[in-house]
Amino acid sequence: MRRVLVTGASGFLGRAAVAALRGRGYEVHGVARTAPAGAGADAWHAADLLDPAGPAFVARAAGASHLLHLAWTTGHGRFWADPANLAWVRATCALVEAFAAGGGTRVVLAGTCAQYDWTALPSDGVAAERSSPRRPATLYGVAKQAADELVEAWAATVGVSAATGLLFFPYGPGDQPARLVPSVALDVLAGREARVGPGTEVRDFVHVDDCGAAMAALVDSEVAGPVNVGTGHGASVAEVATAVARLAGGEHLLRLGALPGSAERSAVVADVARLRDDVGFEPRYDLERGLRATVDALRALSARGGGSRPATP
Amino acid sequence: MRRVLVTGASGFLGRAAVAALRGRGYEVHGVARTAPAGAGADAWHAADLLDPAGPAFVARAAGASHLLHLAWTTGHGRFWADPANLAWVRATCALVEAFAAGGGTRVVLAGTCAQYDWTALPSDGVAAERSSPRRPATLYGVAKQAADELVEAWAATVGVSAATGLLFFPYGPGDQPARLVPSVALDVLAGREARVGPGTEVRDFVHVDDCGAAMAALVDSEVAGPVNVGTGHGASVAEVATAVARLAGGEHLLRLGALPGSAERSAVVADVARLRDDVGFEPRYDLERGLRATVDALRALSARGGGSRPATP
Repeated sequence: MRRVLVTGASGFLGRAAVAALRGRGYEVHGVARTAPAGAGADAWHAADLLDPAGPAFVARAAGASHLLHLAWTTGHGRFWADPANLAWVRATCALVEAFAAGGGTRVVLAGTCAQYDWTALPSDGVAAERSSPRRPATLYGVAKQAADELVEAWAATVGVSAATGLLFFPYGPGDQPARLVPSVALDVLAGREARVGPGTEVRDFVHVDDCGAAMAALVDSEVAGPVNVGTGHGASVAEVATAVARLAGGEHLLRLGALPGSAERSAVVADVARLRDDVGFEPRYDLERGLRATVDALRALSARGGGSRPATP
Repeated sequence: MRRVLVTGASGFLGRAAVAALRGRGYEVHGVARTAPAGAGADAWHAADLLDPAGPAFVARAAGASHLLHLAWTTGHGRFWADPANLAWVRATCALVEAFAAGGGTRVVLAGTCAQYDWTALPSDGVAAERSSPRRPATLYGVAKQAADELVEAWAATVGVSAATGLLFFPYGPGDQPARLVPSVALDVLAGREARVGPGTEVRDFVHVDDCGAAMAALVDSEVAGPVNVGTGHGASVAEVATAVARLAGGEHLLRLGALPGSAERSAVVADVARLRDDVGFEPRYDLERGLRATVDALRALSARGGGSRPATP
């Protein structure tokens, strides 16, 4: 029996990962502070992972062979310097310890492209797992990097296989409304001006369903160490905002540069050789199709008078 | 009132640090799994810091303004790959969180020269805090580096001042008997051959009383970030073993090269500019005087028929 414990299973990325893991035949146990009604996992464990006793309780209750640890502090804008990043490293250590003590054999963590030194990337922004320097500029990046390096070094000493998916820039249905894609789409769908910054920065935007499927593929592989989760293609924030406004039917409502922002060009794009060749995963969405699916989901939600948090379709 | 909570207070380094902190006028609260009878601190808290509830219990009980966190897995030889290194990072996070929540304002951690990339040091082995690359080769080094970077990045977000003393190679009375200085001294004092490796590696050996005094000075300063704790002088293991055998009265009993070991020359020596100029600390012991004091303590203990763990004189 292959049973995977998924933390953050009711979140933006978690819902996509749970669906993909079930598609691969895993029995999925989710963790949430309050188990969501009717959501995708096979079983739910209600626990607060930041409670000192929470991680060991959940690991014992689940008795899983695999662990996909997605839970972390994620509030838009706030998470970069949230002191709770320290508590999430503590919870991560406690969780993997208890998981291994219970006989678990495979751990996958959610890392981030913010673990790389963005100022040291080449002009095309391509970051590679084994060669691009890590020098996180934020507490969030430092904490994710600490958890990543620590768990990978520790795992070898207890016979656990460990990998970290370094997530680039997820977007898609269910995203926090203040983030780029939903904020532009919701403004335009409501007939309001969509005000954004200059948008010169190039990023590797990856649809959340592809993120979830990639993390599931990583769980289901024996690949050890860090693996970028991106598309390998960069697009500027201005290009994305323009496409979203167009797909939402109001490109004329977009006000690029109306908000302040760095006019400095910078690029952060995944080298996807390990994801493609070692994990055997390729994204299903290109940017146009992914943004269209996201805007369509937001339009359907708006038409229903829905709230700010659309469900994954 | 300046009250410092010292973890590992009953250990090799802890006893020296406690004495130095009391000398600076601090009220010292020690933590130990079982409070030692009559040992140096003003108050003891009995707790297991690896218990999930241990760190918060101790931090609340002590209510200290300062924290010197020395406790870690330390078994000679074993600690490099001990899976408990992960648990010590967890305990460190929990401890500093609870300390800050209780109003504490100054944290000093015990780091290690093993956080540096030894293969990237210049031929004289001098490692500097701000310029020498960190790339720990062991789980111990990775864990200490993770705790160091994480706590320093976190501290800024909660208004706590944080520093890490990167300890080079402590020796002195009270050291574990299997380590270089006591093992050679005890063999020679007993009239046995003292068998060691080729001993070509150059290290910065620093007397434990100087380590403790330096950590106390760091606690008592406002210096933030990493600070090397060493002497700035290197000596080869062969030189140290020879001096110890001579001081123990039996240089003819030393068998350099009788045990296998790397014949590769390598050097790891502290750049002490920050310790000297920013913290204002200089070691009291040179190597000859420090080794003499250590051998004298071991001789006195042997004469009394003492056990394997001599007390700090």
